[in-house]
Amino acid sequence: MLFFTQCFGAVLDLIHLRFQHYKAKRVFSAAGQLVCVVNPTHSLKYAPTRCAAAQVSTEQGILPPCHHHEAVHDPQLVPCTCPLFSCPWEGHLEVVVSHLRQTHRINILQGAEIVFLATDMHLPAPTDWIIMHSCLGHQFLLVLRKQEKYEGHPQFFATMMLIGTPSQANNFTYRLELNRNQRRLKWEATPRSVLECVDSVISDGDCLVLNTSLAQLFSDNGSLAIGIAITTSKVHSSEAEM
Amino acid sequence: MLFFTQCFGAVLDLIHLRFQHYKAKRVFSAAGQLVCVVNPTHSLKYAPTRCAAAQVSTEQGILPPCHHHEAVHDPQLVPCTCPLFSCPWEGHLEVVVSHLRQTHRINILQGAEIVFLATDMHLPAPTDWIIMHSCLGHQFLLVLRKQEKYEGHPQFFATMMLIGTPSQANNFTYRLELNRNQRRLKWEATPRSVLECVDSVISDGDCLVLNTSLAQLFSDNGSLAIGIAITTSKVHSSEAEM
Repeated sequence: MLFFTQCFGAVLDLIHLRFQHYKAKRVFSAAGQLVCVVNPTHSLKYAPTRCAAAQVSTEQGILPPCHHHEAVHDPQLVPCTCPLFSCPWEGHLEVVVSHLRQTHRINILQGAEIVFLATDMHLPAPTDWIIMHSCLGHQFLLVLRKQEKYEGHPQFFATMMLIGTPSQANNFTYRLELNRNQRRLKWEATPRSVLECVDSVISDGDCLVLNTSLAQLFSDNGSLAIGIAITTSKVHSSEAEM
Repeated sequence: MLFFTQCFGAVLDLIHLRFQHYKAKRVFSAAGQLVCVVNPTHSLKYAPTRCAAAQVSTEQGILPPCHHHEAVHDPQLVPCTCPLFSCPWEGHLEVVVSHLRQTHRINILQGAEIVFLATDMHLPAPTDWIIMHSCLGHQFLLVLRKQEKYEGHPQFFATMMLIGTPSQANNFTYRLELNRNQRRLKWEATPRSVLECVDSVISDGDCLVLNTSLAQLFSDNGSLAIGIAITTSKVHSSEAEM
């Protein structure tokens, strides 16, 4: 009986995901756009000094070591500076993608334009939604984070990072787009490198920032659809395009 | 001597404004775009209950009465619900434009696309920057407000309001665009009517919201250039355009 109840629950979940997927496709009129449902990954408390050691020169292509947040008992230990997870892994850029796929089971999607559909936006901060995006011969990481910069006022921060060096990242421009309820919000910027610290990008507010009320306006049934596009950058002409 | 010193100061101010104007034109590659330098208008403390009386039906086309904030001694008096100023004026929609021009000396600009250059972004909250925009046979009001929703953390809120009824406002779409330092942020929405309360639009966060750090990234020498465009709305096709 329990088995059948679980099966029924799983079927309901699948129908729900399928429905969300359909709605995201409709909103983004996804001609050729891949819609990916992204569930929240973790909700560990971020240590405020997490980025303290991230100012080390990162052009050498080696990610700084990460430590389990749960295991930080010694206050002298520097918390994780890995872009995403509180994990003890360290390694070269070339193996970051396989590490993220195998150890953290982060999906990787192909295509110039994709739709990132983050579910369960109501979950308490801090929460991350993460996906990898393979495009133009490189891999990118989209991080959506719900975090309380001001206590009691969670905000959403979205940024794109290149799994590559900062100088490689300068060759690209990413665009994040929200579109719902007769409102549209677009953010375009140069991606940061994963060798930089995602925490500092977010604490600097140098990314797409949404207050809870705005996130709710753009959400549909607890899910937020973000259209993502990556292009090679035309830095010098960009500011004269408008 | 004092006269010459003052003249010299005025000339310096003019040169500074001209320089800002030139820079805004350069950033927005203003082919045909009018750049308007907008100085902050006032920095009165907003009463938290200012919008309490704004829920009155507003389709009748009469603005609710406004009272001087400075003169509110009786706690039973409802603070100003006029969209902008703590002023005692009340009147019909048809005369709002002339009231704003004559009494409050708000500039009015013509053109489908203009650049709003707000100066002195460093001034403490609350501060407003306001301009009227005449376009497509109607007048619109752009309000940029610096306000502390969370104490000690000022944010910038920008919205566009139609000097007309809510049903007239539904026929338009406005776009606000920031473009600097290889970053671009666009907000598109249906304007609200001035008969609604600008305070509630801002407290709901249903507008372009900038944290101080992001505002600094988009600012140039203390001034923020916002590109404004207004179009007749295509509500039904808007969400399928992407």
